[in-house]
Amino acid sequence: MTKLSNTRTVRIEWGDCDPAGIIFYPRYFEIFDASVAALFERALGLTKLQQLKQFDFAGYPLAKTQARFLRPTRFGDDVMVESQIGFGRSSFWVEHRLSLDGAVCVECAETRVWVVRDPATGGIKSQPVPAEVKAKFGI
Amino acid sequence: MTKLSNTRTVRIEWGDCDPAGIIFYPRYFEIFDASVAALFERALGLTKLQQLKQFDFAGYPLAKTQARFLRPTRFGDDVMVESQIGFGRSSFWVEHRLSLDGAVCVECAETRVWVVRDPATGGIKSQPVPAEVKAKFGI
Amino acid sequence: MTKLSNTRTVRIEWGDCDPAGIIFYPRYFEIFDASVAALFERALGLTKLQQLKQFDFAGYPLAKTQARFLRPTRFGDDVMVESQIGFGRSSFWVEHRLSLDGAVCVECAETRVWVVRDPATGGIKSQPVPAEVKAKFGI
Amino acid sequence: MTKLSNTRTVRIEWGDCDPAGIIFYPRYFEIFDASVAALFERALGLTKLQQLKQFDFAGYPLAKTQARFLRPTRFGDDVMVESQIGFGRSSFWVEHRLSLDGAVCVECAETRVWVVRDPATGGIKSQPVPAEVKAKFGI
Repeated sequence: MTKLSNTRTVRIEWGDCDPAGIIFYPRYFEIFDASVAALFERALGLTKLQQLKQFDFAGYPLAKTQARFLRPTRFGDDVMVESQIGFGRSSFWVEHRLSLDGAVCVECAETRVWVVRDPATGGIKSQPVPAEVKAKFGI
Repeated sequence: MTKLSNTRTVRIEWGDCDPAGIIFYPRYFEIFDASVAALFERALGLTKLQQLKQFDFAGYPLAKTQARFLRPTRFGDDVMVESQIGFGRSSFWVEHRLSLDGAVCVECAETRVWVVRDPATGGIKSQPVPAEVKAKFGI
Repeated sequence: MTKLSNTRTVRIEWGDCDPAGIIFYPRYFEIFDASVAALFERALGLTKLQQLKQFDFAGYPLAKTQARFLRPTRFGDDVMVESQIGFGRSSFWVEHRLSLDGAVCVECAETRVWVVRDPATGGIKSQPVPAEVKAKFGI
Repeated sequence: MTKLSNTRTVRIEWGDCDPAGIIFYPRYFEIFDASVAALFERALGLTKLQQLKQFDFAGYPLAKTQARFLRPTRFGDDVMVESQIGFGRSSFWVEHRLSLDGAVCVECAETRVWVVRDPATGGIKSQPVPAEVKAKFGI
């Protein structure tokens, strides 16, 4: 496994599930967001809080995402999430594959944008991913 | 507006937002899920709990979704969510458009499956959407 | 009703509920947090985002809370949340009563602290609630 | 550590935090709920899904909770959650202590009720905690 991918195990909890007894699907996106943070933490050797300080950026909000839900998961399931990252100029994409006992449950492909605070507007604006960050991923 | 679409206003709350000060995107999917429930409630004249009892089904989990995030929203924003539904045999699709002051912030297209409990497995299985349900939508 | 109390109606959604079919209780605290924001918005005539800009504070995190859960609520329930506020020096308390069809379901009492960003530590620190804020509540 | 207590480590995620950059406090209650499930899983050797099947109950909803928030936590923090359980007849209490680097951040005391489905009402009702369950905790 290169620095461009990461795998982690996540427990699906009772409170993640809905009255049908299966996971409420927005919880998957919470899991994927944390998986992206884990990818960066592993490559950079910094938690996201430390990253924000060191690189003076404001996060990497989503530009788009698409997901297919193939099999439901339930509370008590320990699922495996494999995430692969690739970089563009000021954006990057991540593909997640969430599986249970070897069977794929969810596939997700997302595009994110590297943003910094924009003093002019008080909001945020996109900016090229720093070369220093890409270098940490071995690019 | 026919019964095949519905519009509602949603307040983005402090707790929906992340340290960048903008909405944490999984919250959008919670909003869209509630918008689908609102569509059915409006067409059928029943809350989802009442629907589950009357039609003896187990919900309409997502098969796939894709979303584009065009503009961020913030706590205190009252966003408008327009949702349009169309039916297949045992599935249906919903398109959501979330906007703020007339500017589109998120576009989402999802496919859902009508499921019932499967006594054979203790899980759930897909089933044709009842004609009675479609009739309530004017189909 | 003085400015020191506020009542709002909240819909309990499918995604707020757990596999027992009733609300997952942390959702109540999300509701109460939004009720506090609504109290301030009503008194100050500003959304929380506008408040943060005008009064240069960093929020009002919880110091303590206690809640009793008397009756469960379910998806499709439209519950009423009555919230009353009282002020100390740099803290304030709020009492919430959440009811369904006139029957109390949850009682909650919380204490919150007015905080500002602390340049010395990069964290937050408590500060007296501004007189201008209290005045808006009629105190 | 007897079977009456359990300790686990939890990562606070970006999406758990609010625009003040600290954890949004309802997330603590999600953590505590999962800690109770972990206590039972450890004592019974069953996930909650397996517990529900074996003991034919419907969960252990909260009757009351109280919490004090002493220090904030932030995304990237790996907090330790120690939980201790004690049993009454049809209820039990759990005390949680959440700490970071040895400093207590949150103390919580909750009372929960053992419930089963009530065919008469379609709802839930309390019932004595089964002796078999208590025995697994060494009581």
